[in-house]
Amino acid sequence: MGEQLSNKILSRDAKADSASLESFPSSQKIHVTGSRDDIRVAMREISLSPTPVAQKDGSTRMEENPSVRVYDTSGPYSDPAVDIDIRKGLASLREAWIDERNDTEILSINSSEYSRERLEDETLNQLRFDLKRSPKRAKAGKNVTQLHYARQGIITPEMEYIAIRENMSLQQAREQGSLGHQHPGDSFGANTPTEITPEFVRAEVAAGRAIIPANINHPEIEPMIIGRNFLVKINGNIGNSALGSSIEEEVAKLTWGIRWGADTMMDLSTGKNIHETREWIVRNSPVPVGTVPIYQALEKVDGIAENLTWEIFRDTLIEQAEQGVDYFTIHAGVLLRYVPLTAKRVTGIVSRGGSIMAKWCLAHHQENFLYTHFEEICEICKAYDVSFSLGDGLRPGSIADANDEAQYGELETLGELTKIAWKHDVQVMIEGPGHVPMHMIKDNMEKQLKHCEEAPFYTLGPLTTDIAPGYDHITSGIGAAMIGWYGTAMLCYVTPKEHLGLPNKDDVKTGIITYKLAAHAADLAKGHPGAQLRDNALSKARFEFRWEDQFNLGLDPDTARAFHDETLPKESAKVAHFCSMCGPKFCSMKITQEVRDYAAENGFEVAEQAVRMIDVESEMKQKSEEFRARGSEIYLEAETK
Amino acid sequence: MGEQLSNKILSRDAKADSASLESFPSSQKIHVTGSRDDIRVAMREISLSPTPVAQKDGSTRMEENPSVRVYDTSGPYSDPAVDIDIRKGLASLREAWIDERNDTEILSINSSEYSRERLEDETLNQLRFDLKRSPKRAKAGKNVTQLHYARQGIITPEMEYIAIRENMSLQQAREQGSLGHQHPGDSFGANTPTEITPEFVRAEVAAGRAIIPANINHPEIEPMIIGRNFLVKINGNIGNSALGSSIEEEVAKLTWGIRWGADTMMDLSTGKNIHETREWIVRNSPVPVGTVPIYQALEKVDGIAENLTWEIFRDTLIEQAEQGVDYFTIHAGVLLRYVPLTAKRVTGIVSRGGSIMAKWCLAHHQENFLYTHFEEICEICKAYDVSFSLGDGLRPGSIADANDEAQYGELETLGELTKIAWKHDVQVMIEGPGHVPMHMIKDNMEKQLKHCEEAPFYTLGPLTTDIAPGYDHITSGIGAAMIGWYGTAMLCYVTPKEHLGLPNKDDVKTGIITYKLAAHAADLAKGHPGAQLRDNALSKARFEFRWEDQFNLGLDPDTARAFHDETLPKESAKVAHFCSMCGPKFCSMKITQEVRDYAAENGFEVAEQAVRMIDVESEMKQKSEEFRARGSEIYLEAETK
Repeated sequence: MGEQLSNKILSRDAKADSASLESFPSSQKIHVTGSRDDIRVAMREISLSPTPVAQKDGSTRMEENPSVRVYDTSGPYSDPAVDIDIRKGLASLREAWIDERNDTEILSINSSEYSRERLEDETLNQLRFDLKRSPKRAKAGKNVTQLHYARQGIITPEMEYIAIRENMSLQQAREQGSLGHQHPGDSFGANTPTEITPEFVRAEVAAGRAIIPANINHPEIEPMIIGRNFLVKINGNIGNSALGSSIEEEVAKLTWGIRWGADTMMDLSTGKNIHETREWIVRNSPVPVGTVPIYQALEKVDGIAENLTWEIFRDTLIEQAEQGVDYFTIHAGVLLRYVPLTAKRVTGIVSRGGSIMAKWCLAHHQENFLYTHFEEICEICKAYDVSFSLGDGLRPGSIADANDEAQYGELETLGELTKIAWKHDVQVMIEGPGHVPMHMIKDNMEKQLKHCEEAPFYTLGPLTTDIAPGYDHITSGIGAAMIGWYGTAMLCYVTPKEHLGLPNKDDVKTGIITYKLAAHAADLAKGHPGAQLRDNALSKARFEFRWEDQFNLGLDPDTARAFHDETLPKESAKVAHFCSMCGPKFCSMKITQEVRDYAAENGFEVAEQAVRMIDVESEMKQKSEEFRARGSEIYLEAETK
Repeated sequence: MGEQLSNKILSRDAKADSASLESFPSSQKIHVTGSRDDIRVAMREISLSPTPVAQKDGSTRMEENPSVRVYDTSGPYSDPAVDIDIRKGLASLREAWIDERNDTEILSINSSEYSRERLEDETLNQLRFDLKRSPKRAKAGKNVTQLHYARQGIITPEMEYIAIRENMSLQQAREQGSLGHQHPGDSFGANTPTEITPEFVRAEVAAGRAIIPANINHPEIEPMIIGRNFLVKINGNIGNSALGSSIEEEVAKLTWGIRWGADTMMDLSTGKNIHETREWIVRNSPVPVGTVPIYQALEKVDGIAENLTWEIFRDTLIEQAEQGVDYFTIHAGVLLRYVPLTAKRVTGIVSRGGSIMAKWCLAHHQENFLYTHFEEICEICKAYDVSFSLGDGLRPGSIADANDEAQYGELETLGELTKIAWKHDVQVMIEGPGHVPMHMIKDNMEKQLKHCEEAPFYTLGPLTTDIAPGYDHITSGIGAAMIGWYGTAMLCYVTPKEHLGLPNKDDVKTGIITYKLAAHAADLAKGHPGAQLRDNALSKARFEFRWEDQFNLGLDPDTARAFHDETLPKESAKVAHFCSMCGPKFCSMKITQEVRDYAAENGFEVAEQAVRMIDVESEMKQKSEEFRARGSEIYLEAETK
């Protein structure tokens, strides 16, 4: 079936998903230029309508509402100025930056044997992405990771891009004087400054507290950062399986996922033509792409785990590194001695990578070859700047198995591996669970910070209960928001189809939006500078019945508008000063406005002063009659002034 | 439009929603009998299929999986043995219990003037529910609240019913020896015993820590309890508005909401024929019904808040109490002096009740009449056993306004009113916000416990961000799960249409399921005894590819099954030992089973012992070669035994 579907798509016919190309309503793609002309940071700017303010003379003054800039992961797809052709892929934003570092060389042929085989196979011509560019690799003796540069004190263009990107809404709001109120957060010892500078980005990367996934063979990306002192990021998964989906569909899922907010995308393909599918995905992705190389390696040995070898795996790493994969999930922490600890679990080993490695270890009576060859993997990673995502192969697959010996044993090993990667200046993040009840989530974060010395944490959910199949985007969105608040840097999304089936486009969108809101809730709780701006702008629009602004400031304007139209479809209702919940006559927000007007007329400022001076505690004890009398007095007093 | 729709439904034609009448798959309605024959506690028992266990001789033994009992809010609607006719209403389960207390009298006419007017209006005949029963009231000088009985040391049949209901899965599992593992919870000082006895229910009610909403004029309910030492409950809202929906539709929303798990239902009607709509709802509701009487009172004065009077409000309370409303939201904490504190908020006063009272106070320069007449309201409540839900009229309507002076000022007043209600032996719970970022949620719970002396907290969400209109069931589900964990006793649901439009049946279901899973996540985190049973059973089914059991144990079997069928529609796929994520060859759960089998064959028990004795920390330091060697040794050693 996979074969059949894949063959449907000939490279000459491949088209972008039209829904991913639409502009966002009342939004403009803008670019903020950095210290050099080729640092042009893409953002989305949402224009708002003015607020009508009634004047004393009966006229109405229109009060401007400043536009709101939002972090934009959608790349050039949402930019009407860019001509999109997925057969050509995206422009190479970072090419000059990579070249000017003068530490890479262009390879005349692919270093991977498998890549060469695929390239020589003419039956694949119709499927193949037509890449004109040859792969790059670090020159002999060079290390091309962002961590390596950071430790040498170099602020790369990538780092500056990120500083502008992370900092934007705040900077603009300061300039406009529209910063407004934000609650101080509670970040459990994270250390986010009030302004994110390029030097801060460098220092965080140098400390290992943040990573910039940016393979030198993926120059198409708009740089982004993953670390607890930055905005919480989310990852979306795509990828074909033995049971379905074509290359064009996978590219459509990619562009659809980033449209709604995916900061990175993992290609988890396990079906046919994984190599070719990946090429299409990477060439068309403005966000970092992650993979689990063991999945493809397993396909190469026809799904028989015990037939895996280090040589096949190594060739797969190089194949993917030269295609431009930005981070690899490596299950190097599934040690032989941890495997028996899972035998009494309710759900055993649920990670695919983890179970493959466990089976391999047992079949050979040998230690996990990812562990024994870890330093060699580091050598590959530093030649392309592929970041590690150290996989949690023993994560719990049920509430019952949360935080057990197997899981925490593996986490300690991941800490050990983190230090080895850092020794090689290779960037690392750590994957986390899984299924964990709410009260046991924080312990995961604390142990991760301790064992992995603040390397970024990247968790799947966690799901906070097992009893809601069909709603696991929500059971896990709860855990994701909480662990993001506690310090997790990136949240791997879960769709409503989790445990049940393959997500379709609607499921991908639902999963992404759920995780985007969870990540934002975490940003608010951590007190990320400027995070509350969008909430404030949306709430002000809501209160003032600026319906279109309310829709447009939301994470999903289309759904918000459609829901509104279901009850009040008329265009006039979108400027109505009421909503469907209460109808025109009986509306709390309308009444509040009347209260405010009344207050203004009656000198509420003065009344407020008077009220504040009253000792509230002692008032409580008094009789209602006294309150009534005093209430009148306040207003009388106010009126007479 | 309301009129038109309402008139569509003549009482002689009204029919139950057929979707609400279906039995749940593989489920049976059972009744557990208490100390007397008429205490028959309804539960749902889900039957599971056996697990095939391969034997050494090649045969397969079928190992039984015990059935799982779940808390059932759906009432007689899901019981095929009951003949449902919404024109007749439900049977009066509690009638004998109420009568035998011998403290009530049957009224020959309704005490409410408005009720009598409506009853005499012949044009309403076609809309009217044909109630044969006359209302009851406490005999002069009597107090008929469950709190009053509890304080006298009386264990009512309602209390015993509740003890059995809250305790059931645990008791059954103990008998079956299938209790399994449950993580100890972290309940922030809640004090749930390992078994819930009738005496514990009584003591909690007597202490004011829990309420049993159970109006003597609503004998149809299956008793339930709201308190932090019991299962976390959820409320669903229904009710017509000026813009839509008929009586039959409202009854359908009720039966649909309780089918999916609503523990109570609030009728928030603000449209036409509120009185008649409510009668239909209450007569057909097996769960307690709450209202906000000020909504109807406002309709009686044509939506002009300043025309409200205590007399109109008082008559409305009596009208509703004699219909059987189980709890009243009363915004008695919106004091005149708090109103100016809201003037500078981003979203002012968003509670409808709060804004009505604020406007009334300002218009009259007088203290809130709900506050000044609070003791008279208590007198009404104790004559029918209507519980208070003290409304948070000044709750924040945006992240920006969370935890401000106005909100917390009102909360202190609610604490003061709680003590007054308790003085009258009237049951009380306290309403809470609203919109609160994650890190500021716990403070709400702590202040509520302190000011209101552990009276149950009943919160709306809270929403943890404002930026996702269309997804506010999720932004609030996050906050709801957290505050439930911290000690909130009941969570008021939010649907995807919140802020945008009127929920339809799908929205009601989505809201209910979201809140049910949030409440359950809270039960797990609190360590509610037996809460993890359903998670464990579902996860075991998932691990063993018992697909039907996995669907049936979930909160929404229909959606789980539909999602599965989208990818793998064939019936045979439901007994397949793989799923759509990985396909038949590449499946982590399948591999884990192989790992387990392998482990069993190779004497893993012994290997595990050996591994545990190794000092894990010191191992970390050693080289991979050593690990490999030792790994082999362990297995060799194990094999030789």
